[in-house]
Amino acid sequence: MLLGSIEAGGTKFVCAVGNEDYRILDSVHIKTTTPAETLQKTVDYFKQFKELQAIAVSSFGPIELRKNSPKYGYITNTPKPGWANTDFVGRLKEAFDLPIAWTTDVNGSAYGEYVMATLFNQKIDSLVYFTIGTGVGAGEIVNGRFIGDLGHPEVGHVRLKRHPDDLDFKGICPYHGDCLEGLVSGPTFEARTGKKGQDIPLTDHVWDIMAFYVAQAAIQETLLFRPAKIVFGGGVVSEPFLKKVRAQFKDLLNNYVDVGNLDQYIVMPLVKNNGSATVGDFALAVEELNK
Amino acid sequence: MLLGSIEAGGTKFVCAVGNEDYRILDSVHIKTTTPAETLQKTVDYFKQFKELQAIAVSSFGPIELRKNSPKYGYITNTPKPGWANTDFVGRLKEAFDLPIAWTTDVNGSAYGEYVMATLFNQKIDSLVYFTIGTGVGAGEIVNGRFIGDLGHPEVGHVRLKRHPDDLDFKGICPYHGDCLEGLVSGPTFEARTGKKGQDIPLTDHVWDIMAFYVAQAAIQETLLFRPAKIVFGGGVVSEPFLKKVRAQFKDLLNNYVDVGNLDQYIVMPLVKNNGSATVGDFALAVEELNK
Repeated sequence: MLLGSIEAGGTKFVCAVGNEDYRILDSVHIKTTTPAETLQKTVDYFKQFKELQAIAVSSFGPIELRKNSPKYGYITNTPKPGWANTDFVGRLKEAFDLPIAWTTDVNGSAYGEYVMATLFNQKIDSLVYFTIGTGVGAGEIVNGRFIGDLGHPEVGHVRLKRHPDDLDFKGICPYHGDCLEGLVSGPTFEARTGKKGQDIPLTDHVWDIMAFYVAQAAIQETLLFRPAKIVFGGGVVSEPFLKKVRAQFKDLLNNYVDVGNLDQYIVMPLVKNNGSATVGDFALAVEELNK
Repeated sequence: MLLGSIEAGGTKFVCAVGNEDYRILDSVHIKTTTPAETLQKTVDYFKQFKELQAIAVSSFGPIELRKNSPKYGYITNTPKPGWANTDFVGRLKEAFDLPIAWTTDVNGSAYGEYVMATLFNQKIDSLVYFTIGTGVGAGEIVNGRFIGDLGHPEVGHVRLKRHPDDLDFKGICPYHGDCLEGLVSGPTFEARTGKKGQDIPLTDHVWDIMAFYVAQAAIQETLLFRPAKIVFGGGVVSEPFLKKVRAQFKDLLNNYVDVGNLDQYIVMPLVKNNGSATVGDFALAVEELNK
């Protein structure tokens, strides 16, 4: 079975073809320029594979994923220049007479981690996948299905208890100032310290401040959902950082509910090198095909 | 069809019999004393109704609702004296050879509001029901089902951005200090002002502080779930208070996602006089019967 995956990011598209065992047979990176050019290159890439049976897209957003909306399949009011109101799925449907699955980038990653967990014999019905990078978002799966009735979640924009040593930092979200994304996305390192996160050692106190906020985000997911596990991906995340997050999470939760072994609850992705969304796309493409 | 409802609260049990149209035919209040006495009186009440076909329980908690747990049907580690580790469903099963539905008090209320919304021709797949009273909790329905894989939600214990005029208040939650419940449950009025909430006019600034926190709770549910609506019940809530909550919610969300008409999104219960759980129980009893 030959399946297509498009992980549509704001800086690049990762296009891949693979099979129902989630094995990548070929892939390409396409720079995200204008919608016309980027989608044309995407179509040209997949046109090479005559045996393709379905394509799944995990896209940056916001996107419209309510099937009953006339804008289903669109990237909607994104601030990314040129991309607002782009009929992504429509363009693919024009080029391919194939089932097209459509979801958010973080939903795709969440789904990839969800199907991999099953392969690893973790019996779970629910999962949260956070990305903490240029932005902050999460995909959430409950009872095997994505969450979101009025639209997809936007968990990056919740408010948090401020760290006492960080009260002077206003946050960098243009919409909310000190929401989660405004406090912990990658660019906040430079806004706070003048240095990039990658150049700041984990012993620096700024990482404790970040962990305090990320732990609160994990607490929110825990107390609102009671998911089986919470996966953290994205450029800001590393195993040593998650160790700090777990410690703060434990303090903040104060054993109020049982989440099992914390080392298996707050975790790095099972799929390495940011590949979760591609795995998720292959799985979603199969599902779309079987509908 | 004759159905039983038990809304098991920490101070009283509301037991009712009714039908599949959610009409209450008879009801009684039983004071919550010891488990043995309270459950005996509950059993005695329902024994009067020979035609009873199913019973649903919406209970204070925490409770075990994972069907695969040996403690399914128990009230678990509640601080309420005498009630920890009480086999509630087991006691009912001993007395009645009937299907017994079992969920949390807030889930029962959420379900009542959910089925009533359908009767009111609101086409929704998701709903959040908050209670803000002696404690703070919420029941959450997504795709017609309750949320909670590792257990039921405990949304009262998330952390929040503190209001600048409330920074000196430590909060009253014995586990977390200034979590949501520690900041907005009924007893916080007395802790802050020495006066009960019912004696403080809505023009008092303390109500703005409360609304700021409750709005953040609504923001969390909105951004994590994107539910179709959020219902607020419990002793602290009134329509004039929700007006303040909506105003703060609008400020905090800053139009980041579309929730439709705010007056129809953040609302009082459709079922009056705290009756949502009884309606929910009747609906859950029917479902249990049809399983």
